[in-house]
Formats: sequence, structure tokens, C-alpha cells
Amino acid sequence: MLTSSTHPRWFDVAAADLHRLLSDHLHCERKAAENALALVRRYPIQDEAALILGRLAHEETSHIIQVAELLAARGLAPRADTANHYARGLMALARPREPDHKVDLLLVAALIEARSHERLTLLERGFAARGEERLAAFYRALANAEDRHAEIYRELAEKAGGVDAVADRLCELAMHEAEILAALPFVSRVH
Amino acid sequence: MLTSSTHPRWFDVAAADLHRLLSDHLHCERKAAENALALVRRYPIQDEAALILGRLAHEETSHIIQVAELLAARGLAPRADTANHYARGLMALARPREPDHKVDLLLVAALIEARSHERLTLLERGFAARGEERLAAFYRALANAEDRHAEIYRELAEKAGGVDAVADRLCELAMHEAEILAALPFVSRVH
Repeated sequence: MLTSSTHPRWFDVAAADLHRLLSDHLHCERKAAENALALVRRYPIQDEAALILGRLAHEETSHIIQVAELLAARGLAPRADTANHYARGLMALARPREPDHKVDLLLVAALIEARSHERLTLLERGFAARGEERLAAFYRALANAEDRHAEIYRELAEKAGGVDAVADRLCELAMHEAEILAALPFVSRVH
Repeated sequence: MLTSSTHPRWFDVAAADLHRLLSDHLHCERKAAENALALVRRYPIQDEAALILGRLAHEETSHIIQVAELLAARGLAPRADTANHYARGLMALARPREPDHKVDLLLVAALIEARSHERLTLLERGFAARGEERLAAFYRALANAEDRHAEIYRELAEKAGGVDAVADRLCELAMHEAEILAALPFVSRVH
């Protein structure tokens, strides 16, 4: 789904401040749950959206708990959230008219989940290489969930916009996603 | 926690349009999850809020799934949400300055959960009296959860504002809650 790969140097920067990374991760999971619930609010009626997105939000909230428990086990409190230029840049690409708007919101969500999967997989491998097995196992479990979520959002978009049209639009949005990400500095956060 | 009891006539009105009642209930559970997540965003640092509220949001999202499944089993799609004057009226009572604002948001959440517990219990009993055992069991399970949530919010408020001050403020807000509710017509919704 993605059209770029994160530079290998990213891991060292992300892992340099684990408190900041985990705090950002907690807020990412919170925003992922909020985004799924916002889609239930906007589009409750169609395509069993309430059921599918409700299940997705349920899983994202379990990730909030897991990140919060990991922070607590290390004696750390989550920090306040900071502005996320990555997600905002992507959301701004959504075409305004329905049903395009719905399709784009779903595809943006799919791309964010796909990028989260890539980044959490890099964290898993990086921490495994350092022998930090508990952190590696934590990121492995969460990375797998994000990958499934990307497919769920793509399928919802296909139901709303048709398979072919959605494939073309996903290509366009994936190019923009890579550009938006490339313009951002490496810091200790997921995106 | 509440200073008024719902009139027995409420059940017949609420149960008269099950599609509308269940749709409203689904959105109530969604807003309860969103509210818990919004508190994680505003107050992530204090009192293990991210962990406690993350768990609460996780349970609310399981209720979204249960309501969505019940609707689907009856061949119904959730309807769009409509304005909730009850919750808005309560939220407007929150004092603006911190830490009062946080205390009030938590106490308002506690009162909404307590009222939800009362209303879901009435639905349980009403449907049981009609011999609709599946619906009765559904509301019984959810009513019990709301009761625990009310206590969780009260305890978070006590940590933020102190036990005595919070007890006084809860009395004030509970009087307002009863007034706001009394001014609203009976319809097929939870509040």
C-alpha cells in the first residue's frame, strides 16, 4: 500500500527517547480509536460500519491500555500530546464531496495504519537487535494489528467507492503520504 | 448519586420505537467512549488517567459492538445521531478554571453513567415483564457496567479535587442533572 520505505536511520532517532516515543504512541492509538468512532458518527448507516469500526475502536483502545501499562511498568506517566503534522496533512487531502469524502477518509486511515505497521515493525526489529526482547514482543503484537486494520479500511473504502476507482485513488494518496512523511524531521515519535 | 427517579411511564415511550432507542443507545456508547478518550487527551499525565480511562473506553467500545450486533440481528441499521440536549446541558455546567474544570467533567461523566444505569435497569425490568428475555438480559449486562463506570469517574474526581469538596459539588450537579432531565420530553432514547 505504501510507496516509500522509512530510512534505516529512523530507528535510532525514534528509540533515543523512549518516554517521548511511548507517549506519542499512546496518543496515536487514542487518535486511531477516536477516528474510528468519528466515522461511526458520520456514517453509521452504511456497510455495517458501526459494527466493523466499533470492533476496530475496541482493538485500538486495547492498545492504549497496553502502552499505558508499559509506561506505568517503567515508572513513567504519558506526556501531553503534540501536533501531528503527518495525520493533519493527510486528512487535508480528503475531497470535500460525498461519497469521495468518505472514500478518502477511509483510505487516509488505511495509509496511516499501513505506515504504523511499517514503523512498529522497524521498532520491533531494532529493539530485538539490541536484545530488548520485551519491547520487541510488544511492538510485534501491535504491528500485526495495524496491518489488519489497513486492510479493513481499504475494504470499507472499496464498498463505498468501487474497487477500481479506489485502487487509483489509493495510488494517488499513497504518493502524497510518502511526500508528507519525507518532509518531516526524524524525531522520537511513530510518524 | 442521582437526586431523582425516572417516571415509570418512561419505559413505554422508550420501548415504543426499538429501532430509534437502539440507535440512540449505540451513539450514547460511542459518545461515552469518545468522552473517556477526550479526557485522556486533556489529562494524560495525572492519576494513571490514561490507563483507567483507556480501560473504560475499551469497555464502552465493547458495548458499541453489542448494540450494533443486536441491531444487525434484527435486520436494522443504526440511524444517524441527533442532538443530545441532556449531555450538552450538563457539560455546560463545568466551571472553566482548572482543576475545577477537570473535577466537573469527571462528575458530569459520573452522573451520565449513573443515569444510564438507572435507565438501562428500567429497560431490563420492562422488557423482562413483557417476556422479552433476550432484550432484558442485554440491558442487564450493560446496566451493571454503567454502574461501575459512575464510581470510577467519582473516584477520579476525588483524586483531582479531594473527597469533601467533590461530595459537595456532586450534590449541586446532581440537582442540576435532575432539573435538566425533567425539562426534556419522554422519547425513544436513553436520556
